[in-house]
Amino acid sequence: MSDRKQFRTLTPPEELRDIVAGLGIDPGIKQVPLSEARGRVLAERLDAPLDVPGFDRASVDGYALRASDTTGASETNPVSLPAVGTVHAGEEPDATVGPGECVQISTGAVVPSGADAVVMVEQTNENGDVRLVQTALTPGSGIMPAGADISAGDRALPPGTRLTARETGLLAALGIESVPVRARPTVAIISTGDELVPVGEPLDSSTGQIHDVNAPTIAAAVAAAGGEPKRYPHVGDDFDAMADLLERASEECDLVLSSGSTSASAVDVVYRVIEETGELLVHGVAVKPGKPLLVGELGEGAYVGLPGYPVSALTTFRVFVAPAIREAAGRPEPERATLAGEMAVEERFEPGRLRYVPVGVTTDGGGDRLVYPVDKGSGATTSLTDADGVVAMAPETQYLAAGESVTVELFSPDVRPPALLGMGASGPGVSRLLDSVSPDRGRPPRYLARGEQAARSWLSDDVPDFLVTSEEDTGGETMGAWSREWGLVVPRGNPADVTDIGDLTDEVRLVRQASGTGLHAAFETLADDAPVGATGPGVESPARQVIDGRADVGVGLRATAERVGLGFVPLGTQRLHVVVNPSRTEKSAVARLEDAVSGLSVEGLAGYERVDAPNSSSKSETR
Amino acid sequence: MSDRKQFRTLTPPEELRDIVAGLGIDPGIKQVPLSEARGRVLAERLDAPLDVPGFDRASVDGYALRASDTTGASETNPVSLPAVGTVHAGEEPDATVGPGECVQISTGAVVPSGADAVVMVEQTNENGDVRLVQTALTPGSGIMPAGADISAGDRALPPGTRLTARETGLLAALGIESVPVRARPTVAIISTGDELVPVGEPLDSSTGQIHDVNAPTIAAAVAAAGGEPKRYPHVGDDFDAMADLLERASEECDLVLSSGSTSASAVDVVYRVIEETGELLVHGVAVKPGKPLLVGELGEGAYVGLPGYPVSALTTFRVFVAPAIREAAGRPEPERATLAGEMAVEERFEPGRLRYVPVGVTTDGGGDRLVYPVDKGSGATTSLTDADGVVAMAPETQYLAAGESVTVELFSPDVRPPALLGMGASGPGVSRLLDSVSPDRGRPPRYLARGEQAARSWLSDDVPDFLVTSEEDTGGETMGAWSREWGLVVPRGNPADVTDIGDLTDEVRLVRQASGTGLHAAFETLADDAPVGATGPGVESPARQVIDGRADVGVGLRATAERVGLGFVPLGTQRLHVVVNPSRTEKSAVARLEDAVSGLSVEGLAGYERVDAPNSSSKSETR
Repeated sequence: MSDRKQFRTLTPPEELRDIVAGLGIDPGIKQVPLSEARGRVLAERLDAPLDVPGFDRASVDGYALRASDTTGASETNPVSLPAVGTVHAGEEPDATVGPGECVQISTGAVVPSGADAVVMVEQTNENGDVRLVQTALTPGSGIMPAGADISAGDRALPPGTRLTARETGLLAALGIESVPVRARPTVAIISTGDELVPVGEPLDSSTGQIHDVNAPTIAAAVAAAGGEPKRYPHVGDDFDAMADLLERASEECDLVLSSGSTSASAVDVVYRVIEETGELLVHGVAVKPGKPLLVGELGEGAYVGLPGYPVSALTTFRVFVAPAIREAAGRPEPERATLAGEMAVEERFEPGRLRYVPVGVTTDGGGDRLVYPVDKGSGATTSLTDADGVVAMAPETQYLAAGESVTVELFSPDVRPPALLGMGASGPGVSRLLDSVSPDRGRPPRYLARGEQAARSWLSDDVPDFLVTSEEDTGGETMGAWSREWGLVVPRGNPADVTDIGDLTDEVRLVRQASGTGLHAAFETLADDAPVGATGPGVESPARQVIDGRADVGVGLRATAERVGLGFVPLGTQRLHVVVNPSRTEKSAVARLEDAVSGLSVEGLAGYERVDAPNSSSKSETR
Repeated sequence: MSDRKQFRTLTPPEELRDIVAGLGIDPGIKQVPLSEARGRVLAERLDAPLDVPGFDRASVDGYALRASDTTGASETNPVSLPAVGTVHAGEEPDATVGPGECVQISTGAVVPSGADAVVMVEQTNENGDVRLVQTALTPGSGIMPAGADISAGDRALPPGTRLTARETGLLAALGIESVPVRARPTVAIISTGDELVPVGEPLDSSTGQIHDVNAPTIAAAVAAAGGEPKRYPHVGDDFDAMADLLERASEECDLVLSSGSTSASAVDVVYRVIEETGELLVHGVAVKPGKPLLVGELGEGAYVGLPGYPVSALTTFRVFVAPAIREAAGRPEPERATLAGEMAVEERFEPGRLRYVPVGVTTDGGGDRLVYPVDKGSGATTSLTDADGVVAMAPETQYLAAGESVTVELFSPDVRPPALLGMGASGPGVSRLLDSVSPDRGRPPRYLARGEQAARSWLSDDVPDFLVTSEEDTGGETMGAWSREWGLVVPRGNPADVTDIGDLTDEVRLVRQASGTGLHAAFETLADDAPVGATGPGVESPARQVIDGRADVGVGLRATAERVGLGFVPLGTQRLHVVVNPSRTEKSAVARLEDAVSGLSVEGLAGYERVDAPNSSSKSETR
């Protein structure tokens, strides 16, 4: 690694945004049909090419007449005017209105010449061919004069107008079929890394393959910012191939975005391609996540290299690149949506760089907002789906105490934190329970399946509203429980003839759950001298490895084995309790949880049983 | 009109929403590719089909080793471990790690078997083939274990999740290529009325034709609510054609929306079609605008008939129909975005129905929010583009005093009232000035071109920030001025040989501006015994009528005549002053206006001149 470079000068975050803005991404103007204009931003002023309405229009159903003929008219003293014609909307008047006459008229019809007012039909009465007008009118009443909505030549809409249904209405009234809008900047999306496999193709985990997360993710984020993402085929870490691809992309697009291969490691070629074929303006930014960021120019084009880790890529995109795309697309910066809350737990930071900490938000029993970090590291994709936004921590901040006030920048103004937060065990029973909690204004409960041990620790910090746990005596109130049969999951037909825990010799490749989970603990109590086995955290992970041939035996549930068609050797049953945080019993979301628990059916889940008397027996029975 | 029906029982607004919700619009579920899933709502829970990562992954560049080999290691007392291999991301490890050994590893690569930790390269040093490890590690450090992001079988995303780039990331990591989302409800869009002409076709104003505003407008509103609009050909007021069309639309769509033809007038057929071929659940709602609303069932389908006036149609759609479409599409109701403010002027209402009054919002010199009605009537399309939202007035409210507190429901949460509000004269100079005011966070100034007289009255109520007016002594401070040459606009070549105002005999069809405008007043002072002529409010409207052959002579500007290629007979010059509301001189938006005024060029506008010494001469000079 002698050619490894260090990031010598990290660009400060506040400068980086200006540098990206200075790349001058300009997609120009595009003419789009009115039917496709919704959400677009008008590039030029539009003036009214005609008067709306184009004629003096009746605004009520009634009778067109001369206002002067109605002087003194009232209900008791109506004026009699013979009706000399009729005009409906869409027709040319077949009569003019002379003194002492009227013409029957529909809403929207052309006011016949001679008339200067329209009386509502409800203010008239019938008397043969003569109309009795029961009210006195002023000139202009019941009429919308030509051009009263908008006049020819007037400024109809200014440049920069974001087009909604309301503007569509005005444009349609003006007969404007297509409008000049800011074009969407086209953004090349390039993923790098030999280990990436496109979504939809199978992974070979033994060679460390992973799905290409960034390409679809950044494409979606580009579209959300008003850009037009253009995906390019994935390239590996080959200099020439990368140089060709970047050149082509920069010719075809307004901005080239790559992800990965930006660090200074020997195998990361992107920064070297930019350095040699373009101009590298920034290499590294003082922000976490996101340090290995590149900004440069490629020919006439703009280039930004995002870090490879999905959280880093999306965070740096959101903070530094999305504003430039919105600007290029003519979209206003969204109002920064923030929430104030208190840290639910303490948090320590490595100082030196601005940090964006993904956080979730919940409310405690008193309605106060609690903020909890959900960061599993930049390599994790759930760090973002489990979060509602980020807390930005200044470079010098090393420590946030529990209870300290923080401001959460929501990912977008429409993010609303879930009303109910659970933590603990996972499995098909838990998922079914969560599905049956009725959503709060569309928001399903959030559930962090991090195992019972972590959940208990969060509960002691008063973060979750409830746990699902195999542990007794968690300090909460058990709302309901069920039991599930667990044991060894083996290939169909049980070829190795594993019948008990004693058969798990060193030759058998065993996979079981990570420590901190209930199934791990249950297995330990049975087999404390059994082989450790490789560990995977999830209730179904070992079964997956048995299916893939990567393990001979896995610890798992009967329900899983039966569903996926594997063999099963029962070892015991485990009880899972739904435990409510004692400080949250009054939350309305918890009432919805209670409904779901009491209505929960475990029918169809093999080896599951409802337990009607919670807390009545030990957590695990062995056969 | 003997068959005219009355609206006997108007449905209360609060009931109507429930009735529409009860129509049971259900578009079902659709599988969409991940690349098209942004913004869609997940219809079913998605569980992780695999572990992410699928293997124990190095989370740093460095050396994989056994943690127990590093006990006691430090910078001054490093541990020497021979490097026995190298593994990059995307490769199968070519070596295992025995006791006392290490393997060079890249971020993202598979941790070789035998190793239980990865030391960062920065914490090591080189000594030939041997690596000097300068820190003690705990097992698991530098490694993201298999399934640590998410484990196979775990609930990845709950139903009801709105898919953003963040969820795209998780789905991509899981290799999920397509997702089950709530289908968009298909909504038939039908316009009725013999007078309607599709946008893009020419209008014949003499027969009262108008453009079909509602079809494109409601289509855009449907799309914004998450529906899929489907336009049907426009039909006239013919019973059989309407019945056929509605039947076809109800078979093809989840909801049929028509507009117009809903009142009880003899020519309105829609309500009769629904009554005879379906079930009419509601005819009329106690709301203004919007009274003639229909709700019904057509075969298996849902039907809503919106009123024909665009403001009524869009308001009733927004209040009563959009929530049902969002619900069907699985979209949460947007947070109701409101602003509190004070009425800038008094407003009187006809009591008896809930009223939605379109209003604009501005801020006064002290930063207080002022609310002003912009309603030009339901027939006007600018009532919505000039507004920021509506004030809902209870049926019994008859009067709002100036200064009274009101709550404005913004049309959407992203509506931001313009920072600068002007009123007064219109014309190419005004438009050019407005274009050159630098926008405030993307928001161009709002300008209500309602003529000088109306503007002056608004100024006395302290509503606008500035006026553009030909009047002297408006009570404000003149920031700048220009003059424009006006006169008679005649057909090219001046066939009627009009050379002066005296040539305007009764035989000449003259069109001029409405009273309340500066050009009207200027013409009056010259020609108080001249023929009245038909009136149109806009500076360009008369010229348009001359072009169309509907008038022989129009009052207008030299700039207009030269631009459109008409003849011009000069009558005078008129000075337009930019007058600042004295209470708004400190507003920052007014400073931007001042910049624009001082930089304004009238070059290229025929007959225009900048006036450098404002207030120095009379408003109108005649030749």
